Order: sequence, then C-alpha cells, then structure tokens
Amino acid sequence: MLTMQDALLALTKYWTERGAMVVQPFNTEVGAGTLNPATILRVLGPEPWRVAYVEPSVRPDDSRYGENPNRLQTHTQFQVVLKPDPGNPQELFLESLTALGIDIHAHDIRFVEDNWANPATGSWGLGWEVWLDGLEITQFTYFQQAGGMTLDPVSVEITYGVERIMMALQGVDHFANLAYAPGISYGEAFGQAEYEMSRFYLDDADVDSQRTLFEEYAAEARRLLDARLPVPAHLHVLKCSHTFNILDARGAVSTTERAKAFARMRGLAREVAALWAERRTELGHPLGTAEVPAAAPAPTEFAEVSGEHTLLFEIGTEELPPHEVTRTAESVRRALTEKLAATRLVHGDITTYATPRRVVAVVDGVSDREPDAERTVRGPRESAAFDADGNPTKAAAGFARGQGVDPATLQRVDVDGVTYVGITKTDIGRGAVEVLSGILGEVVSELRSDKNMRWNDPKLSFTRPVRWLVALLGDTPVPVVASALVAGSTTRVHRTAAQSEVAVASAADYPAFLASHGIVVDQAERRAQIIAAARELAATVGGTIDVDGESALLDEITNLVEEPNPLLGSFEERYLDLPAEILTTVMRKHQRYLPVRAASGELLPHFVAVANGSCDHDKVRAGNEAVLRARYEDAAFFWRADLETPLDKMKAGIAKLAFEEKLGSVAERASRIGAVAQELARGVDLSEKDTETLARAAALAKFDLGSQMVIELTSLAGTMAREYARRSGETEAVAQALFDMELPRGGGGAVPSTVPGALLALADRFDLLAGLFAIGAKPTGSSDPFGLRRAAAGVVAILRAHPVLRPISIPAGLAAAADRVRAQGIEVSDAVLADVAEFVVKRYEQHLLDAGNAHDLVAAVIPLAHAPAAADETLTELSARVTDPDFAALAAALQRVRRIVPADTASSYDPAALVEPAELALHEAFVKARSAGSDLAAFVESASVLTAPVNTFFDEILVMAEDPAIRAARLGLLASIRDLAAPVLDWQALTTSLEG
Amino acid sequence: MLTMQDALLALTKYWTERGAMVVQPFNTEVGAGTLNPATILRVLGPEPWRVAYVEPSVRPDDSRYGENPNRLQTHTQFQVVLKPDPGNPQELFLESLTALGIDIHAHDIRFVEDNWANPATGSWGLGWEVWLDGLEITQFTYFQQAGGMTLDPVSVEITYGVERIMMALQGVDHFANLAYAPGISYGEAFGQAEYEMSRFYLDDADVDSQRTLFEEYAAEARRLLDARLPVPAHLHVLKCSHTFNILDARGAVSTTERAKAFARMRGLAREVAALWAERRTELGHPLGTAEVPAAAPAPTEFAEVSGEHTLLFEIGTEELPPHEVTRTAESVRRALTEKLAATRLVHGDITTYATPRRVVAVVDGVSDREPDAERTVRGPRESAAFDADGNPTKAAAGFARGQGVDPATLQRVDVDGVTYVGITKTDIGRGAVEVLSGILGEVVSELRSDKNMRWNDPKLSFTRPVRWLVALLGDTPVPVVASALVAGSTTRVHRTAAQSEVAVASAADYPAFLASHGIVVDQAERRAQIIAAARELAATVGGTIDVDGESALLDEITNLVEEPNPLLGSFEERYLDLPAEILTTVMRKHQRYLPVRAASGELLPHFVAVANGSCDHDKVRAGNEAVLRARYEDAAFFWRADLETPLDKMKAGIAKLAFEEKLGSVAERASRIGAVAQELARGVDLSEKDTETLARAAALAKFDLGSQMVIELTSLAGTMAREYARRSGETEAVAQALFDMELPRGGGGAVPSTVPGALLALADRFDLLAGLFAIGAKPTGSSDPFGLRRAAAGVVAILRAHPVLRPISIPAGLAAAADRVRAQGIEVSDAVLADVAEFVVKRYEQHLLDAGNAHDLVAAVIPLAHAPAAADETLTELSARVTDPDFAALAAALQRVRRIVPADTASSYDPAALVEPAELALHEAFVKARSAGSDLAAFVESASVLTAPVNTFFDEILVMAEDPAIRAARLGLLASIRDLAAPVLDWQALTTSLEG
Repeated sequence: MLTMQDALLALTKYWTERGAMVVQPFNTEVGAGTLNPATILRVLGPEPWRVAYVEPSVRPDDSRYGENPNRLQTHTQFQVVLKPDPGNPQELFLESLTALGIDIHAHDIRFVEDNWANPATGSWGLGWEVWLDGLEITQFTYFQQAGGMTLDPVSVEITYGVERIMMALQGVDHFANLAYAPGISYGEAFGQAEYEMSRFYLDDADVDSQRTLFEEYAAEARRLLDARLPVPAHLHVLKCSHTFNILDARGAVSTTERAKAFARMRGLAREVAALWAERRTELGHPLGTAEVPAAAPAPTEFAEVSGEHTLLFEIGTEELPPHEVTRTAESVRRALTEKLAATRLVHGDITTYATPRRVVAVVDGVSDREPDAERTVRGPRESAAFDADGNPTKAAAGFARGQGVDPATLQRVDVDGVTYVGITKTDIGRGAVEVLSGILGEVVSELRSDKNMRWNDPKLSFTRPVRWLVALLGDTPVPVVASALVAGSTTRVHRTAAQSEVAVASAADYPAFLASHGIVVDQAERRAQIIAAARELAATVGGTIDVDGESALLDEITNLVEEPNPLLGSFEERYLDLPAEILTTVMRKHQRYLPVRAASGELLPHFVAVANGSCDHDKVRAGNEAVLRARYEDAAFFWRADLETPLDKMKAGIAKLAFEEKLGSVAERASRIGAVAQELARGVDLSEKDTETLARAAALAKFDLGSQMVIELTSLAGTMAREYARRSGETEAVAQALFDMELPRGGGGAVPSTVPGALLALADRFDLLAGLFAIGAKPTGSSDPFGLRRAAAGVVAILRAHPVLRPISIPAGLAAAADRVRAQGIEVSDAVLADVAEFVVKRYEQHLLDAGNAHDLVAAVIPLAHAPAAADETLTELSARVTDPDFAALAAALQRVRRIVPADTASSYDPAALVEPAELALHEAFVKARSAGSDLAAFVESASVLTAPVNTFFDEILVMAEDPAIRAARLGLLASIRDLAAPVLDWQALTTSLEG
Repeated sequence: MLTMQDALLALTKYWTERGAMVVQPFNTEVGAGTLNPATILRVLGPEPWRVAYVEPSVRPDDSRYGENPNRLQTHTQFQVVLKPDPGNPQELFLESLTALGIDIHAHDIRFVEDNWANPATGSWGLGWEVWLDGLEITQFTYFQQAGGMTLDPVSVEITYGVERIMMALQGVDHFANLAYAPGISYGEAFGQAEYEMSRFYLDDADVDSQRTLFEEYAAEARRLLDARLPVPAHLHVLKCSHTFNILDARGAVSTTERAKAFARMRGLAREVAALWAERRTELGHPLGTAEVPAAAPAPTEFAEVSGEHTLLFEIGTEELPPHEVTRTAESVRRALTEKLAATRLVHGDITTYATPRRVVAVVDGVSDREPDAERTVRGPRESAAFDADGNPTKAAAGFARGQGVDPATLQRVDVDGVTYVGITKTDIGRGAVEVLSGILGEVVSELRSDKNMRWNDPKLSFTRPVRWLVALLGDTPVPVVASALVAGSTTRVHRTAAQSEVAVASAADYPAFLASHGIVVDQAERRAQIIAAARELAATVGGTIDVDGESALLDEITNLVEEPNPLLGSFEERYLDLPAEILTTVMRKHQRYLPVRAASGELLPHFVAVANGSCDHDKVRAGNEAVLRARYEDAAFFWRADLETPLDKMKAGIAKLAFEEKLGSVAERASRIGAVAQELARGVDLSEKDTETLARAAALAKFDLGSQMVIELTSLAGTMAREYARRSGETEAVAQALFDMELPRGGGGAVPSTVPGALLALADRFDLLAGLFAIGAKPTGSSDPFGLRRAAAGVVAILRAHPVLRPISIPAGLAAAADRVRAQGIEVSDAVLADVAEFVVKRYEQHLLDAGNAHDLVAAVIPLAHAPAAADETLTELSARVTDPDFAALAAALQRVRRIVPADTASSYDPAALVEPAELALHEAFVKARSAGSDLAAFVESASVLTAPVNTFFDEILVMAEDPAIRAARLGLLASIRDLAAPVLDWQALTTSLEG
C-alpha cells in the first residue's frame, strides 16, 4: 500500500531526477501552490526555472469540519513548474504517474480541457484537468500570464491533487481513511486540525479583526512596493488574500467589498509582478536565460515526384478542447482549399479529419507539378525605348539588363492603349513538393482558435501546442517547416501504446492506417461507434440512450477520445431518490457520462462512460463508479441539508451573495425582478390565480441560489427551486413559476410553460440587460461574461412563445426594469435603453435569419420586432403571400408610392382639390382601404383595392402639378396611403423575395 | 556532491524508514521547527508520535541582507520528534549522519551540553548541541515541558541545522555558495528573498502596523481559546510571536513591552497546551498510548561468593554536562559510602571515576557476606508477663506466639530501669551480592543533579539518561535493578568503535580495561593528558598553554571527552589584529579551544582543540579551523565596521536601544549613570585628573553597546569600549574607566581598578537598582531578568575594594540615582529605596556568610553594612577579638545594659541624682569611655573600663528606684552607655561566638 507520504516522496524523487529543484511550502497561508513565489514570481521573466514542491493549500470556503469525504479546508497539492516548456510535459507527467505506481496502460487517463484564470492576480493559462478514470487528479496548465504580464517563455504548471489521487489509489471513500503514513491515517494525523480550522473559518474567526488585518496587510504591501521590495510585498498580498478568503468563508463580504478587495489585490499583485521582473532585470537575471527551440531553417531542397499522388498532412497536437476539434478540421480544410487555389497545382478532393490529438488533411490526386505559365513584364514606353535611329535607349537597355535579356528581344506591349516595350517570361511550374511545403507551413503558422496560447515554440500560437507534423505526398516526405516544427513521416498514436510513435510509409489510406493503431480519425465514424456501443451496453441492463437528447454531449465525447471505448457503469439505486436533474447534471456536466434510461424515460442506475483507448475495463469502471458515488454522495448531502433548511432562510442567504458591485447582491436583484414582473403583469390579462402565483413566486425569486445544492451545481438553479418549493408546501404553480423563471437556459432551450413564470423570466432578463448596459458592461467581441446575448435571446423567445404577453413590448419591459435599477441610484439614460432594445432586436433578427428566412422578409418585419410575437405573425403571413402576384403588385404599388412622396409630406389632403379621374379613383380606393387593420392579412384584404388605382394614378397623373393646391392634394393622398401601409411592415425592404 | 535538497531527501528517507511520519513545514512563519504543532502540541499527552519534517525557520533578528556568511533570516531546520524516547536516540541520530554521507569514524562528533528553553511558550528540555568538528550542526533535546505542562512520556527532539551541515560537507564558506540543487546555488535560489526579507525585518516593516497585528492576533488567540479550539489558537499565538520578533528586529520593543508581550504569549501558549491535552483526552487519545519500558522485577536470587572481591559498578549515561561529571562521581562515592556503612558488609576503599558517559565506582576488598548480628526483641513488662503463679499471662503467651518461640524461653530485658520480657534474635548476615544489589539500585534511583530530566524510564530522573549498568563483584554479576534498568556485564565504549559494546569479564583493573578501549576514565589523568598533549602541540609552533589561566576551561574540556585527542589548529595571522579578548572569547566560550600563546603571553595564531576519540586529524582540524575562521570573519567584519564608526555615532546609536519602557533607552540610562557618578564623586577626594577622566568617561558611558561587536558578543561590553576609545584617541585613563565601569562581571570577578571607573560602575548599579525597584521590577524567586542580585553584589564588591569611596553609603548612592530616575517622571518612594538598600545589604550578608563567617558576627556588623568597607573592618576586628575574655565580658556587659533599658529611654541623665557608689563608679567609667571612637578597636580600648562597673552596678543597684528622679538618672546613665556602644556594632547579635 503506497501511503500518502510515500507518494509525496515518490513525486519529489521523480521530479528531482528530472532536474527540478525542491523548495518548501510557503510559510504563510496560500490558496494554491501557484501563489508560492516559486511559481507566481518565478514564471516571470526570461530565467529558466524547474521546481517541485508540496503545498498544503488552504481554502477556508472548502471547510466542512472534516465531514465531507472529499473536501478539506487544507488539501495537499504537489506542484511542478517547468520553465520553459520542455516540449514533452504530458509525457513527463504520465511517467510521474507510473512513478506513483499507477498502471497507465490499465487506466483511462485523459486531458480534459480546463483553463485556469486567477483574476485576483491577473494570471491565466490554458490546459486541462487530467482525469484518471473520470477523476480529476491534476491541473495541467500552460501558464500564459501572471500578474498581468505575458510570460515568455511559457511555463508548464502541473498541480497534483494528492488526496484525490491517493483516495483513488487506495480505494478509500473518505479522506480521513487514507493511509497517510505506515500505521497512521490521514484522519488521525490531521482530523482535529481539519475540524478546528473549519470552525475557525466558518464560525469563529472574528470578522472585525480580519477586516483590520486585511487593511494592515494591504497597506504594508503598498509600502513595500514603494520600497521596491517585491518579495515581502508578495508575502503581504498573500496575507491579504487569505484574510479575504476567511472573511468570505465567514459570509462577511458584501458585493461592493468583494469588488473593491479584488481590485485592490489585483492592483497590488500586478505591481508585485512588474517590480519582481524589473528587479530581476536589474540583477542581470542571475539564473540566465531559458532556451527554447529556434525556428528551423526553411527547406531548400524538394523531391520531385511524377504522376498524381495523395497528400497526407497531419498536424499533431496536445489534446484540443472538444469544440475546437471540428472547428480546426474545418478551418484547415478551408485554408488548404484557398491556398491551393492560389497556386497552379491541380488536385482533387480535400478531406479533413480530426481527433483531440490530430487534424488530418487528405488531398486526393495532387498532380506532380504546376504547369508553366507565361507572364509579361512591362518596360519603358516604346516612345522612350528607342532613339531616333531605332536603337534602344539607355532606359530600354537598362530594363533589358535588369531582366537579363538582350535588348533586341524586347517586344511591344499594349496596356490601356499605350505601347510599352517588355518581355514575356515563362513561370516554370514548381514541383508539387515545393508548392505544398510552403502552403502546409503556412497552414500551421496560421492556425488560430477562440483562445490561443504559446508553448515552447518561438512563434506558433494555437489553442494547444502543436507537437508534430506528418507530410507525405504519396510516399514522398514533404519538407514542411512551421517555426521550430519540422514535418516528418512519424506519427504518434496512443501514448500508452507499446510503440507510441510509428512511421507512416505512405499517404494512402491513412484513416485505415490509424485505425490499425486504434485511432478512429473520422469524427462521424467515432460518433456512430460511440452511439452504437453505448446503446448496446445500455441494452444489457434493459435501458437505452437518448441519442437526440444527448446530442451535444455526444459531440463533446466524440471529441474527447481518439479510440472510443465505452463501458457501462452503475450506481446505487438509492441515489435515484434524488431529483433526476441532479443526477443527470452530474453525469453530463462533470463526468461526460451518458445517462441510461428505461423505455419510459426514467433514469436507470447506470451510465455509459467513454474511455479513450484500451484499458482494464474493470479498473476503469470501478474508478468511474467511485467518482460518481463521491459526487452523488456530495449531492445527497446537500439535498438533505437543503431539505432541512426553510425556504426563507435560503432566501435570506442570497443577500450575502454578490451579484455585481453597483447592482448589489443577488437578493437585491431578485427583489428588482419580482417588482418588474408584477409591473409587467399589470399590462397583461392575468387570471386571479396567476396573479397570486406570481406574487408568491416573486417573493421567493431565486431563493434556491442560497441552497447548498445550487451553490455547488449552479446549473440546477430553478430546478432546485421547484423541488424545494414543492417539498416546502408551496403550490405546484409557484414551484413551476420558480422553475420557469430560469428558462430558457440557452439558445433553443425550453421556454417558461406558465405565464407567471414567463413574466418572472422576462423580468429577470430585462433587469440583467438594463442593469448591465447601464453600468457599461455590454458585451464586446467574444466577451459576454454576464451572458447578455443569451438573456436577449431569452426575452425574444419568451415573448414569441407567449402571445398573451404581446402587450409587453421590449422597450416597455426595459423601461420597467430601468426604473428599478434607477432606484438603486444608477443612471439609465434613454440612449442606453434604446441601445439595449436594439441589442435585443438584433438577437431576434439573427435568429430569424439563422432559421432560414429571407433577408428581405426579415428586414421587412424588423420594425415590428419590439413585439416579436407580432413580427412573427407578420413574417409568417408575409412568407405565405410573397409568391402571390396580387400581393407582389400591391407591395410594388406601395413601394412606388413611398418612393415618390418626400418623407416630410404630411398625410392629409383636401379631396376637393382632386379633379382627375385617376386621382379621384385612387382617393376612393384609399377611402375604402382606410379601415384596413394593421395586421398583414387584414391589411392586404382591405388594401388590395389600392393596387390598380395606384398604378393608374402614376401612369396618368403628374404629381408635381404646377398648381400648388393640386400638387399638395396629390402628395397628401399618396402620403396617406404610405402611412396607412407603414405600420404593417417595411414595404421598401421587400426586394428579392418579391422578384423571385 | 550531495546537494542541500539531496540532504533533505536523504534525511526524510532515513527517518521514514525508522517509522517517522513526514509532515509539511507550517504555513505560518515560525521561529523554529519546535513551534510547528507537529512538535509543540504533539509532544503533549500520552499518545505516541514520530515525525520528521523540514522547517524553514524565520528569525527576523538574524537578518543580515544575505551578507553574513552564516546568518540568515530564514534557515532550514530538519526536525525529528521521537515520542516516546526510543532508548537509543543518539545512536539513531549518528546513523542519520551516516545516511548524509558523513563518515562518523573520521569526524569528531560530540554532544555538548546545551539546554533549551522557550519561555515564550513555557517549554524546556535538556540536551546537547551536537558538534561536528567543532561546528554546531544539531540541537538534540529531551523535551520535558511544553506550554507549562510536564511531558509524559518524554519526547526526543532532534533539530538539524541544514545549512550549517551542508556548508561543512560541501566545504563552502558562505551559505550563498551552497549547491542547493544540481546547477543551482543557495544564493541563486534564495538570495533575493534573503536580501528583501532582511530589508523588511530590519528597516521597512511598519512598526505601528506590526503592533496592531500583535494585538489582533493575541485577541483572536484569546477568543479561540474561549471557543475551545486549540489548533487555530496556536496558529494565532505563532502569528503573535512572529510579529513580536519583527518588532524586536526593528528595535521597537522596550524591556517592559518585552516582558508584557512574553507574559501574554506565555499565558496563551500555556492555555493552548492545556486545552490541546484536554481535547485529546476528550477525543479518547486517537493515536493510543505510547509504551515505555516497565520497571524490571526486583532480583530475588543472588549468587554467593567467597573471599574478598573488588566491586565494579558502572553507571552508563548519555553525555553529562561537564560540571555534573565530577559532581556525580563525588555524589556516587558519598552515597555508596553511606549506604555501605548502613550495612554490615566489610569493604575497603571506595574510588569513583567519571567521564561524560559513565560514572564508575570501584570498591576494594568487599567481603563475601555480612557477619550475623544479635538483636533483642522486647515484649510486655515482666510484671504483666507472669501471673501470681509465675505462669505466663495471655500477654506473654501472645508475644511468644508472635515471635514464634516457646513462652518458656522468654528472657528478662532491662530498659531504662524497667524490666520487660523479650527474646534475643540473630540476624543472619546477607551475602555480599544481595547487599550490593539493593544498595546499587538505590544509588541509581537516587541520582540527582542541579537540573534533572526524564527519559523513557518510568521512574528515573537525572541530568541525562542513564542507559546501562555494569555491576560485578569480582567476576560475579551483581543483579542490580533500577526502575527499568537491569545491570549486566556489558559496557559501551566509543560509539564509533568497531565494537561499541564489550563484555566486562571482571571487576579487576577496570580503568585499564577501559583504557584498552581508548577511554581514560580517571578525570585527573585525562586532564593531565590533555595538558601534556596540548603543551606539546603548542610547543611545535613555539607556543605554550596558560594552564593556570585556562583552568576552568581545562576542567570543562576534561569533562567533555572520554579519550582526549588534542589537535593543533591554526587561524590566519591577520586575525591577530583583532583585540585578544575577542579572539579568546570566541575560542573559549564558543569553541572550548585552548588559546596558544607565545612566551610573552601574546596570542599565536593557533589553538588546541580536544577531539574525543580517534578520528581523521586532518579532517577534524580542517573542520575546526573552518568554524573558527567563520567566527573570526564575523568578528573581523564587526571590528572593521566599528572602527569606521566614530564614537559619538555609536553613542548616538544607543538611543535606539530600548532599555526599559519607563526607564527609557540605553542612552537615557547612560546619561543618568554619568550624572550619578559625578555626583557621587563630589563626596570623595578625587584628583583633578580623575575628575577630568570621570567627566569624559561619563560622557561616553556605554557607547560600545552601540557597536556591532557588542551587539553580537555582549560579554565584550566594556572590553570593546576600552579598545574603541583607545583607537579613537581618548586617554588611556578614560579608556580604562569605560572598561572598569562594566566590572565586576560576575560573582568574584575583578572590580574596577580605577576610581573614576569604580564611580561609574557604582552609578551604573545604583541606577539599575533604584530604577527597576521603582517600577516594581524587583527579583522574585529564581527570576531576576535584569541581574539585580548581581548588581547589588557588584555595589558591595566595589565599595569594599575602594576604601577611598567609603564616604559613599549605599543609601546615599541609591538616593542620588533615585533623583535622576525621578527626573524621568518616575516616582521613587523612600520605602522603595529602603527596600533596595536592604536588598543590597542582604547580598553583602550572604557573601559574608558564604565566606564562612559566623552568623552572629555577621549579624553584629550588618548595621554597618551601608558602608561595607567599614563593616568589613569591624568584622575583621570582631573576629580577632571574639575569643578574648575581656572583650566577651565587655560585650556581655553591654548586652546586659541593653536588655534592661527600655528602647525609648533617652540617653541623658542628671549625674547629680546619682548617689550610690556603684552608680557613681559607672558614671565615672562612662565619662572616661565617652570619647571612644566608633571603630571597634578604638571603642574597645576606651570602653573596656565599663565592664566591671556595669557588672557591679547591676549587682548592687536597683535601677527601678521608687524615686522618679533617681530612677530617671539611672536609666539615663545606662541608655547613654547603650547609645555609646550602638554605632560600633549590634552587640545583641553576638551569641555563639562569645560562648565558644
């Protein structure tokens, strides 16, 4: 039995043997090994650094009196920093697991996207959490920024969660039962401290005293920065931070305080980082400068091939985030297509494949070389090229010399009617290998993703490191260079394969070649395999997989594995007593397990996990089951605890939750939402029962954010509200309204099923939009931290789904929300509200376009979009009528009217001034049409009478009569028709749809 | 090359293999590994605990900006706690050195007494500093008390000073040059932190802020104790302690503040300890109860021997403190003598020997058994023993039955003239082995020293653990049991000998047997060997050893080794530029080296170190030389720095040194001393030159306390003043006065040789006494933090040594000092001054008694003690006269007078009222005696005429005459005689000396 202390020693030994220096845990409380100066300061600047250390990491908020099996106020991190990235950190890490006695061939070890950011210190990195049979055992990060400074070189940070690893290795289900040392358990060694420190952090720390400490530490840090002493300054920032964490755990930090404290700590941390870097520079970088690979020289020799060949190009990466897998395949395909098109190389189909570790492009029938091409080079004008004797002038001679030809061979070239001298050159087609060499290098250099990072390459930047390239044209290697990467003909298969690097002889049938090494490179095929195997496994327990319902999860799983290896796991039936949403949330979000259901849709106590590559099924199953059990045990603990907590106590709890500095706590926001919902309700025809329901639901709004379950599993907000409300004796209608108010959760998600719920949901989103726009937090670029785009789409979806809410226009809803926001002393200008309304309408417009509606029809109804339900109806009607010639004629007529009438013409006229028959006919038609409704169907029915008279009018009447009275009457008549039609839709917008 | 991190791993591995658990350094700043709860709390209570850990120990006061080669604000301790004492901790420790690659056979490794106490936590233990070739590498302690609680079982605490060990192993002379890890030096890894944290601790920490932190931490600790949470309470006590250390390093702690802070921290620490122990009891001692050896059963079978034999009894110990070696040998000899005398066993001479590891007693000619002895047992009175018929009564029959004899055999026994019945019993003499078995066991059990400790034995207590016993009578083992110890016939020789345990066949010639194993058991012989060898070594460099001057050091060295192995070391000549006192202080106090001098007395650049046992001389010499070089380098650094500092700047520096909160800085104290000295001088007949000298010396008083040298080596105060004064051009007289003012340094030490120096020294001590008594800081019990007892003794010694200062009475001196103290706004009442004066006189009295003067004589002169020189003279005179019958008669007469006269009788009378011849005769005698001087000799000469008349007066005269006038005259006469005699001495006190 490997004890925990053995494990720490084994890791220490392993990493020292790989050149890491060992330092001690920091001697003030830190929340993570990262904050030890051996990481957070040493990653700055150019000096190399390789360090390993244990760090007992203190997180007051994780205090559980030692009762929770997995959570401790102090847990043990083993921290490794490799600066610079050694190029093979994942492999080094896997070897370290072997050093811990973990059979990496038997277990399912995966790198699952998990990026890291510590806003309090202005630090972030990209990387993964490493899974051992579904258990997160390590955080693996390519450190990109620290203290607001960009890191160069990049450091690799590996943080092992030692208790978790050891619990898995020892197969114990509570940390207290870990064998810490021979004959002494973790609980025996640290149990009392765990309990007492939990008491201190959660119950007994003196809040006033901690506030004083915070101020003292911050002030000392400030003074030390001024004294140019980054080391003690950092120490004091850490003390600040820990004190803040204590205050937070004591529930003593208001939203405003939090924001201020964070800003202060961030500011100090950034100064510390900058000062440290500066001081190291002043000291001449005592440890020297880290070396990273240099860019490789560009290839200069290219093999010649003959005949057509298949091109294989593989970009080998470390595990890509799932959503980048497909996206990268597509962008590589596009780049290749465009770049090949810019050459004269003839080729066939371009196909790309992708797994988490590779993007493969296959180009069929690449010809052996570009055909030659002729090209004219223009010299001086003919008139300046020859002297009176017809001999070449100096200019011509110079040109010829420059081009390396005899002046006698200069030809005449006409360009835009001017004659020049010039020559015709033949561009010799390049060999395919040469052409591809250049293109493929560019493809790699130009790879980009949503979030890009650096590694040990001097230039490349991508979502994760690119580690190898394979480029073969038929069986000829293509010499591709991208920065320091040089393509070869060796690929990498599973890291745990007997031979993890294999030679690729030829481009032919590469997917089959990879398949022979267990890798299913085609995403569609992987997905199909997963579904088939999962269904088969589910069937063995009489269950099934909801393939449609789990579509997004299946996509994600497909992109998490190269060799899908689904296996069936089970959990104890008793957990089925928990609400199904809890169980599935844990399975999907945390574990990426497919829930197994009975034919009735009921959950069965099973799941399908999809491992990557061959492994010992029993071990991996057992591991995954243990992880799920622990998570369900946690959830069950929260569930029971919450059920014992009255709703009003939970509701009171949300006053402690910060929402946003200026906008206050979650409780304040909930109160605004309730008020806005009830105000919106006044404009709507609500039943007495619904009114009651709304009032009660408004009073309880968001109470479940104060429950332990939702604090833990935020995506269960609303779901838990319904559950807890039901169990507390609230009416089903109130419970449902509370559930509904969190809908829709995302694009295309279910909308509230009840009107009270819909009103709350609307109010929620109006408050969010009005409030955050008001304080200047509108989304920019890809940044939308508060999910305002989703909120706007939600407003639209709700209004479209509930015709009864049509009286609520978007601007009106925003105005109501703005009033409440203003009541908190925040200015909300009309311009801002107009801005928000436009932002919401844009979501609607985008949605209509995404749904395949013609641009012109969408544009035509957008003026109605403040009431999306109405706009929807018009669009439907319009789409139905647009092919009707009569409607087209009417529309054309109305557009004609609009084009003629100046915008400022008033819609009034004196019928008595009209005299011509055509104008009188039009007047009469208008009078008939004048009663037309503003909905499209009604309008068309009434207004169709206008079509012919309008056309006749324009054929026969000169609008701009010389007599001002006549002219005014004619314009007035047309303006009246214009204004009659205007509220129906934007007739001018109708273009292509009418024509088609 | 073993790097420092290798060493830490090697130690960790070594101790885990011996069952130690590994924990992490504490995550708040601690001054020593001891304060980590893994030591300071875990040593409490009965639970077993064995732990090893690294502890970066932070001592703000040791900050040196990374410049000092050996001193760091954070140094690395490797801490081991073994609870209970495993019985062989020294051996385990030595093996750990081997694990570090140290050849313990080649090096001189010694356990040198060094006890540990941490008053701030109420903790202490006895043990050693472990020397590696003269370098202190480890603190080794048997932990006796923690947090004020007595530890049971006792823990062994081993604290390795890792930097020091590594510097020695790597042979580097600055910590920054240590190879910390492959390719990275200590300086590269931690240099910047060392500099910056030094800056923080010495210069930049904000004092007000730290004071606030201190208060907050202390208050939080208080609250947490009230909440019964010892773990976080301890954490806050540590934070308090570190903050206090920062304040101290910033020079911001006055003496009173220090005392208050210590008292507060001690109080909290004690409560933490008590509460922790209580909580562990409540938790049922989760780790169980440590097992220590049980007391062995008492022997019941004893071999019989015949004829006379030598007894050998060896008590094997761990290294005794040098001063206990000889003392223990003597006490064992005394105990054996007394205990044998209480038996009937005949024996010859008793000899004892001792080394640091053993006390050996040899008793010659022990006979084989005790002779038999007869004994009478008394029964009832004869009168009650027989009835009228002469038959035994029930009483006699009962007595006989009780004694197991026939009533007929009862004899008559006379006791004090009463006749009883009784019997005569024969006590059969026991065999020698049986007798010795009991006695020797008692000798061990009754061993005691100045400071006693416990180890893993259930009952024994001594200055250091007793680990083995050898008891042989001739070649017969004597079965001795002392608690868990059982004597055998195996002794232990050098721990590094090829065979460290050897069988002892016979008691004969044991010293020779030990000598054959390298051990010189006879102290005198060892001392002689050391002297001879040291002289020989010194002679090789033309030098000598001042055997008389180094007598105390030689005694100490003799008791530090079993096999003296002196070796000659050298240091660079350039260090001889330093004052000799510095060099010899370092050699003697720190290193126990014998200085080597030229015939002229000048120091030579050599020393003799005395290793213990065989070793590689070159290595050991090199090690010792390196230690001395480092120490001299430190000293030279201070010396140079001080010489560049003008005296007035140093003097200004003492304004920053706190003396005591109310009494102000050291500068204020120095100023008071100067003023008092000059005031005292006004009453004394001083030469003009001395007056000038005094004025200048007073102005400079204590300036050297501001020198770096004295801050470092406080015992050089005064010495450095003289050196620096000389080199700054002060007169030799001023330099000497500054030197003198610090004298005497201790009991029996040299007193000032000059009058200006004596005046300053007096003023110094008067100020100390008056000031501290005034603020209520008088010594209590054994606590005398300011050394007031020493100061009082100093006052007496100076006044006794300088008759010219006789005009200065103790009260007058105190009064002068009090005036200056009052000038600082401190109230000094007359009662307090009387109290101080009495305190000083008590020192004098004690001194006189210690010198062997009779109690009554001392008591007689104490009234004169305000001028000790005068009292001395009187005592001398008195001692000479006390056997003179005439003097005795005079004294008796004077005592008689005093007894008769009521205390309130005035010494005036009307001679005319006297009528009787006897009273007239007395009157005449009085008139003659009236001119007697108040010194004893003169008084006796004049007053002897009183003896006969006084006696006659009392024989013939009724003092209490009825006539009031006569009565008044008689009483007045007697009172006049009384008052005449009173100033001479306290006649009533003379008792036994007169009678003898």
